[in-house]
Amino acid sequence: MPILGQNQYGKAENRVVKITRDGATHHIKDLGVSVSLSGDMEEVHYSGSNANVLPTDTTKNTVYAFAKEHGIESAEQFGIHLARHFVTSQEPIHRARIRIQEYAWERIEHSGKGAHSFVRRGQETRLAQITYDGEAWEVVSGLTDLTVLNSTDSEFWGFVKDKYTTLPEAHDRVLATEVSGRWRYHWTDDEQEAPDWDDSYEQTKRHLLRAFAETYSLSLQQTLYAMGARVIDNRGEIDEVRFSLPNKHHFLVDLAPFGLENDTADGAVYFAADRPYGLIEATVLRDGCEAKIPTDLTNL
Amino acid sequence: MPILGQNQYGKAENRVVKITRDGATHHIKDLGVSVSLSGDMEEVHYSGSNANVLPTDTTKNTVYAFAKEHGIESAEQFGIHLARHFVTSQEPIHRARIRIQEYAWERIEHSGKGAHSFVRRGQETRLAQITYDGEAWEVVSGLTDLTVLNSTDSEFWGFVKDKYTTLPEAHDRVLATEVSGRWRYHWTDDEQEAPDWDDSYEQTKRHLLRAFAETYSLSLQQTLYAMGARVIDNRGEIDEVRFSLPNKHHFLVDLAPFGLENDTADGAVYFAADRPYGLIEATVLRDGCEAKIPTDLTNL
Amino acid sequence: MPILGQNQYGKAENRVVKITRDGATHHIKDLGVSVSLSGDMEEVHYSGSNANVLPTDTTKNTVYAFAKEHGIESAEQFGIHLARHFVTSQEPIHRARIRIQEYAWERIEHSGKGAHSFVRRGQETRLAQITYDGEAWEVVSGLTDLTVLNSTDSEFWGFVKDKYTTLPEAHDRVLATEVSGRWRYHWTDDEQEAPDWDDSYEQTKRHLLRAFAETYSLSLQQTLYAMGARVIDNRGEIDEVRFSLPNKHHFLVDLAPFGLENDTADGAVYFAADRPYGLIEATVLRDGCEAKIPTDLTNL
Amino acid sequence: MPILGQNQYGKAENRVVKITRDGATHHIKDLGVSVSLSGDMEEVHYSGSNANVLPTDTTKNTVYAFAKEHGIESAEQFGIHLARHFVTSQEPIHRARIRIQEYAWERIEHSGKGAHSFVRRGQETRLAQITYDGEAWEVVSGLTDLTVLNSTDSEFWGFVKDKYTTLPEAHDRVLATEVSGRWRYHWTDDEQEAPDWDDSYEQTKRHLLRAFAETYSLSLQQTLYAMGARVIDNRGEIDEVRFSLPNKHHFLVDLAPFGLENDTADGAVYFAADRPYGLIEATVLRDGCEAKIPTDLTNL
Repeated sequence: MPILGQNQYGKAENRVVKITRDGATHHIKDLGVSVSLSGDMEEVHYSGSNANVLPTDTTKNTVYAFAKEHGIESAEQFGIHLARHFVTSQEPIHRARIRIQEYAWERIEHSGKGAHSFVRRGQETRLAQITYDGEAWEVVSGLTDLTVLNSTDSEFWGFVKDKYTTLPEAHDRVLATEVSGRWRYHWTDDEQEAPDWDDSYEQTKRHLLRAFAETYSLSLQQTLYAMGARVIDNRGEIDEVRFSLPNKHHFLVDLAPFGLENDTADGAVYFAADRPYGLIEATVLRDGCEAKIPTDLTNL
Repeated sequence: MPILGQNQYGKAENRVVKITRDGATHHIKDLGVSVSLSGDMEEVHYSGSNANVLPTDTTKNTVYAFAKEHGIESAEQFGIHLARHFVTSQEPIHRARIRIQEYAWERIEHSGKGAHSFVRRGQETRLAQITYDGEAWEVVSGLTDLTVLNSTDSEFWGFVKDKYTTLPEAHDRVLATEVSGRWRYHWTDDEQEAPDWDDSYEQTKRHLLRAFAETYSLSLQQTLYAMGARVIDNRGEIDEVRFSLPNKHHFLVDLAPFGLENDTADGAVYFAADRPYGLIEATVLRDGCEAKIPTDLTNL
Repeated sequence: MPILGQNQYGKAENRVVKITRDGATHHIKDLGVSVSLSGDMEEVHYSGSNANVLPTDTTKNTVYAFAKEHGIESAEQFGIHLARHFVTSQEPIHRARIRIQEYAWERIEHSGKGAHSFVRRGQETRLAQITYDGEAWEVVSGLTDLTVLNSTDSEFWGFVKDKYTTLPEAHDRVLATEVSGRWRYHWTDDEQEAPDWDDSYEQTKRHLLRAFAETYSLSLQQTLYAMGARVIDNRGEIDEVRFSLPNKHHFLVDLAPFGLENDTADGAVYFAADRPYGLIEATVLRDGCEAKIPTDLTNL
Repeated sequence: MPILGQNQYGKAENRVVKITRDGATHHIKDLGVSVSLSGDMEEVHYSGSNANVLPTDTTKNTVYAFAKEHGIESAEQFGIHLARHFVTSQEPIHRARIRIQEYAWERIEHSGKGAHSFVRRGQETRLAQITYDGEAWEVVSGLTDLTVLNSTDSEFWGFVKDKYTTLPEAHDRVLATEVSGRWRYHWTDDEQEAPDWDDSYEQTKRHLLRAFAETYSLSLQQTLYAMGARVIDNRGEIDEVRFSLPNKHHFLVDLAPFGLENDTADGAVYFAADRPYGLIEATVLRDGCEAKIPTDLTNL
């Protein structure tokens, strides 16, 4: 008989918005929460018996009820509450993994009373993944869809040439990418003091942006490593970082047929291509730490 | 024989990025440009003769060459250059319509030298449409994907009830929408002084955001009108505004089964729904002006 | 005071699935229905009074209730029921427009009992738009996302050359497009016999596909006209057709640097590009009929 | 110093269309190919030296050249050619992973000459992933976006109830999902006879569809296991299957307020919801085989 391997289930993409009122000043948290549970689940697969199955609908209700009961201090703290609840309250559930997408909002400046008007920031989506097996925690945070561009200080030359190589060497190119990153925290135990999750996120984002901007780049790999190393060097609470960086190619347009020189030194015109694109992926680790973030952040 | 009606053709979504250098300080313009031409085009439809057809590939080349030759002062100004060129340089072409999407970038703060590192702002997409028939100009600007939310000061009651009505009245609800707007300029003639397009855009966005924030709302229609009226009242260069506002429903979650009161006064938890959604659309006009913006900004 | 222009409102993208049982054989209809109503709506915009406003939530309820009460014979017939209801049951409502997206399903072949297992066909999305003002009907049907390709019998040459033209002439190219089409029916009056909507859709789709396949093409415009003319010539119930045809470019890859001849006669390798793309749009009319389908089916 | 962990790079989403001519009958293969290479890549990360780096542009060129030189017999066979080339021709490259998306086309029926007109099938996307380290092969094939629905023969009851459970038990519900599946082949060695990849794909798809249709379901987990077990039992060339099955909820609409009974036995009306959704994931293995397919096929 075919054997059941790893399995998990839950309710994905519960969209929860929590408003907190401080008089006429309101605060907003806007999350998409996905719950994934594992444990003694052989029977539901083999015979269809749901005797060990907490319905995915219940996991959805729990997300909304916890948002009211406990509030949402941070995405990570909210995920820790939820994961602990599922593992400790249901004997057949041995592991819970909570994934959260967070959307940021800014206040709209205006001359009216109160502060309860918001515009979605629309830049990166913040990510958090909290896993608990009843003993140890694993928290991986991250972001996606943060597009950055250096209009100079990027070169690419000295590469291998084989019979299929036609690319000319470049000594002044545009370097652009849409950052997808994940970082794993050192924190694994309730006895340890937990990081300030929101501050850690802001500082980590700031460091990776600055490393991107301040690195004179000979390859996107070098820039990636510089981004990861800067996070590891500056954020002691983080042991591992992984980036998936599509090389969003900006090709210099050949304008010679029209009698125009399209020279970078003089400011140039680029064609921003969609596909194909280079895809550079790597993990950067604190010395002595083990890699645990999966190597495929995307499906391509 | 079946008759040929209105027709147009061109190259769509030319992605052009222009870098301008001012020493170590760079500036960036990032556009998607779509060209659409009309004129004496019966033969290419009836017999396939391309004798009157400037290839769409040529229109693409022209976009890139003009970005180098003339620079991109603003999306609108760039579109005006292009439209004038096609209509005045090719006799069979009687009308040109240029549509532009513009993506905004911010500088990355860092301690390195120079200013040539950018992060995509990621909020709304700016839009411009320039139409020219050799005599008069029509410029319609706008934006899309600007998501806004008021967490209070919105009510909805006193509506018609028929046999299919179950909706309870609401006296304190979340009001959220993803603004899609277009505004038409008074400017139609090269003899008139043209607006400062970039400043007009920034001010118009600011006014519609403030009107959204400052309006105590009894219906999304009322908010829409307030947004349009504020633009008309404050921006003399604009004669007409149209908005398409999806009502991004945030439903109060029923937490009573779990012994929790989910009361707005106390800060509440909402389910942010995807579909279906209310869709509110209207034009607001300066008194005495004629409506020209098409009534369907979306396909739904 | 700024003036209110054209306005409309309703609930968009109501996803309704109707199962009909004929013993163990089930039938499925899968629609997305968008309702848009217009009429005496000044007050809701100016003062926020909802006294004339049937809530969008009610229009949603009506869609689901009508699916049960009247069934869904065809998308068009369902839209006619709904539009008539809104205009005739609510005095302030003077016009109703119903837009429908329909998703097709096929049966899964299997050896079990009954016939109640389906796989989504996944090809084009069928469209219908029904508008009623209390007197006359307008029915526009259509489809979107139907991707077609001819691997030969397409040329492009003899076109205008200006200083920005670099495109070589082509005598054997791939012609591919993603068909977006709309067709308007002659039927406007309850007194007339209505078409068999489902049969008309199937035949119209068949005709436009065959015209695409059977036309030796000198330009995409010529192919477009042939598709429209074939529909007009063969389907007497249709007075007007409009197509929006992106030219999905398949570029011959230059393999000469690798000592390979990439010749079409011998079977060739193409790069399927995303952007930019040619966009060809036109209306084809029955002689003597007036064009009523809007000229912009897309926003680009 | 921070340590470099797992890393890989290459060109993603190379869109390649190959036409093969057999007289006037043409054949089409339409792929998106992503190349990912690993090996001695420390220096490019640490110092930016590209001395070991075959440019991603070269990997793109290789994809197109190989499509011409070797043709595309099947996605898997094409990937095997490519992976072998990169690992055996470049000493610093120790592992190559090729991922392929394949889009299916059907012929357009028509009365013209030849057979070179196609319409994109538009149903599932076929997937293949080929990994080679110079010694052993791993081939994982699969599909995504195959939407299926049973309109009866599905129940859900007897589940765990905790304080957050409100879901009623269901004895006749719609069961729908969008199948994402991956299956790993037993074949690892050039000495073994390789499967007929295209036939294996067709048969595997047929088996999983039939298992979905023929299983009387007490839970989506039971259906998932039945689908996987049927593949393992019938396809000896496959050792492991993993499915990620979102539960595309179809909720019975409450029509009681309108005096309508929305009863499944009589054919019912459902609201097809987008989010949240249940997400059921599991691996099914041939007895004695080890699981190697990653457990997260999606990012949620």
